[in-house]
Amino acid sequence: MAPMSEVHTGGRGSSAPNPLPLTSTVDDAVVGLKFDAAGLVPAVVQDDRDGIVLMVAWMDAEAVRRTLTTGRTWFWSRSRRRYWQKGETSGHVQHVRSVTADCDGDTLLVRVEQVGPACHTGTRSCFSHPLGSGS
Amino acid sequence: MAPMSEVHTGGRGSSAPNPLPLTSTVDDAVVGLKFDAAGLVPAVVQDDRDGIVLMVAWMDAEAVRRTLTTGRTWFWSRSRRRYWQKGETSGHVQHVRSVTADCDGDTLLVRVEQVGPACHTGTRSCFSHPLGSGS
Repeated sequence: MAPMSEVHTGGRGSSAPNPLPLTSTVDDAVVGLKFDAAGLVPAVVQDDRDGIVLMVAWMDAEAVRRTLTTGRTWFWSRSRRRYWQKGETSGHVQHVRSVTADCDGDTLLVRVEQVGPACHTGTRSCFSHPLGSGS
Repeated sequence: MAPMSEVHTGGRGSSAPNPLPLTSTVDDAVVGLKFDAAGLVPAVVQDDRDGIVLMVAWMDAEAVRRTLTTGRTWFWSRSRRRYWQKGETSGHVQHVRSVTADCDGDTLLVRVEQVGPACHTGTRSCFSHPLGSGS
């Protein structure tokens, strides 16, 4: 749970010039992302063990930072207008294994170890309503 | 490639009243979706064979209909403001195996058989930029 956003590299107890930028690795990671007009990117959450797509939710820069620094998934709720950690009430948390941006930097793929069902309806994945099949 | 949007159920060669609504299965499927203010839902495209998440793009109701009726993925390009079929120029088409909505009806999961690389950069998946790993 130690925040990394205040990590400064080098210069500890030294007066020597520090050529490294005073940004953390987490902030560097977030800088490359392209958030939409509302400051959000969709985050696809996938089970790291078997590849099942569990859910899609939204992250702003702060939710990405929290996800990277805590190792749990944090999202921005557009309807409730607040941050939420997956499993904060249900206990069905997601242990983050990796976070990957797509080629445009406007979508994230978060691979997790899911505790319990991912969906609030009790199903393992939120994707459980078949629309039809291709030809 | 036979369009399903004109399919009517029942009443074939019969003058009996048809209690079924004159909507197609495709339109029925689209009706249940919750499109955002721009009329779009994000569509997560996953390789049906090994579960790799290939890309995320956007569909409006018409793109969903085209995807369901043609068995190929169709999207709405927000930047170019036009429909595009995945692989229409590259040949790297996606054969649709299933389309599933999530519990809120505001996101789609499309499982496909991908021809060639999914990403325009030539990589198999568009998700190839690691941001960092969880704790």
